[in-house]
Amino acid sequence: MDHLAHVSNQPNSQPQSQISHLALDIGGSLIKLVYFCRYDDNCRDDDELRSQNESLGSESDNSRPVLGGKLHFAKFETSKINDCLEFIHSMKLHLGGFHDCTAPSSDKIFIKATGGGAYKFADLFKEKLGVSLDKEDEMECLVTGANFLLKAVHQEAFTYLDGQKEFAQIDPNDLYPYLLVNIGSGVSMIKVDGDGKFERVSGTSLGGGTFWGLGRLLTKCKNFDELLELSHQGNNRVIDMLVGDIYGGTDYAKIGLSATTIASSFGKAISDNKGLVDYKPEDISRSLLRMISNNIGQISYLNALRFGLKRIFFAGFFIRGHAYTMDTISVAVNFWSKGEAEAMFLRHEGFLGALGAFMSYEKQCLDGLTVNKIPQRFPISVSSAGNKIYCSMNGKSNDNESIECTV
Amino acid sequence: MDHLAHVSNQPNSQPQSQISHLALDIGGSLIKLVYFCRYDDNCRDDDELRSQNESLGSESDNSRPVLGGKLHFAKFETSKINDCLEFIHSMKLHLGGFHDCTAPSSDKIFIKATGGGAYKFADLFKEKLGVSLDKEDEMECLVTGANFLLKAVHQEAFTYLDGQKEFAQIDPNDLYPYLLVNIGSGVSMIKVDGDGKFERVSGTSLGGGTFWGLGRLLTKCKNFDELLELSHQGNNRVIDMLVGDIYGGTDYAKIGLSATTIASSFGKAISDNKGLVDYKPEDISRSLLRMISNNIGQISYLNALRFGLKRIFFAGFFIRGHAYTMDTISVAVNFWSKGEAEAMFLRHEGFLGALGAFMSYEKQCLDGLTVNKIPQRFPISVSSAGNKIYCSMNGKSNDNESIECTV
Repeated sequence: MDHLAHVSNQPNSQPQSQISHLALDIGGSLIKLVYFCRYDDNCRDDDELRSQNESLGSESDNSRPVLGGKLHFAKFETSKINDCLEFIHSMKLHLGGFHDCTAPSSDKIFIKATGGGAYKFADLFKEKLGVSLDKEDEMECLVTGANFLLKAVHQEAFTYLDGQKEFAQIDPNDLYPYLLVNIGSGVSMIKVDGDGKFERVSGTSLGGGTFWGLGRLLTKCKNFDELLELSHQGNNRVIDMLVGDIYGGTDYAKIGLSATTIASSFGKAISDNKGLVDYKPEDISRSLLRMISNNIGQISYLNALRFGLKRIFFAGFFIRGHAYTMDTISVAVNFWSKGEAEAMFLRHEGFLGALGAFMSYEKQCLDGLTVNKIPQRFPISVSSAGNKIYCSMNGKSNDNESIECTV
Repeated sequence: MDHLAHVSNQPNSQPQSQISHLALDIGGSLIKLVYFCRYDDNCRDDDELRSQNESLGSESDNSRPVLGGKLHFAKFETSKINDCLEFIHSMKLHLGGFHDCTAPSSDKIFIKATGGGAYKFADLFKEKLGVSLDKEDEMECLVTGANFLLKAVHQEAFTYLDGQKEFAQIDPNDLYPYLLVNIGSGVSMIKVDGDGKFERVSGTSLGGGTFWGLGRLLTKCKNFDELLELSHQGNNRVIDMLVGDIYGGTDYAKIGLSATTIASSFGKAISDNKGLVDYKPEDISRSLLRMISNNIGQISYLNALRFGLKRIFFAGFFIRGHAYTMDTISVAVNFWSKGEAEAMFLRHEGFLGALGAFMSYEKQCLDGLTVNKIPQRFPISVSSAGNKIYCSMNGKSNDNESIECTV
């Protein structure tokens, strides 16, 4: 059990020979990168691998070597794609693709990519890095990534209520069906029934791009994280019209609305003789975050209800492990379901699509794969072949930054 | 069939003796008034009334005279409640309430009122006008008002698609159940199963107050109507991130998203190097209107689906007969239901709650009712007693402004 795939978002400067596959998820706001670096050339021999796989009930083809190494995660703003291209180039990550096995003599390199940007920026990648983007379906990648994390990573999913994070025990044999809510610039809601069995059942255009976009227009914030940070100090009651504001401080108890329930997001901005400059960015950010998180929670619950799904997993880079965001979504799901449903979150929420694209390398004919004598199979990818993988957190709880996986 | 209740929002200066009941719906943003003025003292005699009621299958108590007259509608911004109080005072409308029949010697006047402001502003009405507000439940009034309009008023409900208004034939015997979506500052969604049989099943804080509040902060608009008007000239694609923006101009056809589908409302505001001043108020208004209307349409549909309701009626002062608002809501319901459900609108959308409060006068013991020899029963109120009333439009189609009712 000592083969390790170490996941990190702290890229080190890697010598070229150690860089393996690169996969991209190019969304409307962010580009997410996953790439694999070997620890060294310590490929295990077949016997050792076989014995280990058997102990895990693996059905994989054991004739190939297994590599130990680290999975690195990185992200860039899509609007700064040139920074991303430069990063890839400087790290020589673009060599970590695969060759077209139907044309063995070709030296054309393909990089797995998903998200709309895989289409939009294909020419740019060709021009700047000389690589072709091999496009993988966005929803498929999200689901593959989610299934991997939920099945393979110990303490991946958790609930969040009243400031308390509680890890959920997910039985991999009792995972399906569930609702996956991926909150990127926009929001996709996907009913997942099994490996590769899913349907995008709903979504909403009020997502991370709305929070950031409206937030930028309403405040002087320069980036998403700054805006999110501001919300910590804010008070949504300054701008939101509460039930108590309409009812003179009392509840509307008959229909279960307390005085502090938000009746109208940003509704107080209508009756005050105030302009934008009179409101604190902190309060604006808080109201905005609450409006969007609550709305996503509500629509998610209604869709879970519609299909009889007990579990709702929220992912995507909008969340960023942010306490108030998770709390609002949790409260919304709890409120609208009258306590029947529960929101769950993923520790590695932001890289589902990129992980899914990364795993799709396995679908390729692997003979032409290696660029720099990179082994054709590596531990973390085994999951997508349906094998059992068990991962445990690597000591400290640093969320996105590090998973220690043993296969 | 010549007893007329004429509904108008063009209040005339009425001599005091002709003013009858006043009812109020005091919401977070707007105060809606309904008051009745007699044409003259032409009360019908009992025989005439009886014969007419019988021909309509009425079961009402025919011993009381019936009055012909006009129902007037008016509205004020809640933030300008003093204007409203002044209007009521100058028109002597505050005398159009009822006396407490359990204390015949008292000269205390009660005015029927609903909405949160009936609680919040009760003391103010007492202080300024010397009247007590007799509070009626908000949801009950909305439902009573909607049922009256849907049953009694010919060509009240209509669909709106591709700029085409089409009146719906509603069979009063096949009205229930339906979903009533009232879009005020916030949004209430009410499942209506019959006269007085209803449940508030959902709602959203993204309503008219959000449109107006955010709109005020983002533009220089001085009022709701100006903001709504601006949206006519706007183009939401300037600020909204479309699927095509992410996918480089192409559709995401696999999951049924066209290139022009909004992926992220206000999502383009993140990637541009633009601030608020660089966006046209027209475009902001359009994006805002579309975001909120689409969201309401989506959540409404999900709730209709949940309870198996075929008809969704949208009302509330947010709509204001505005073509683009209705079009967006209709498209949203059509999109999310894949053509299975249809949005319907009400011509007299803004006064449901006030009408419901008005009708609740009938619940009072009527002996102490008259202030100025006002008859204790008038045509339009008969509906709330379950009698059949047929209304027809008064010639020209001027929507909120005029209904001619014959009972």
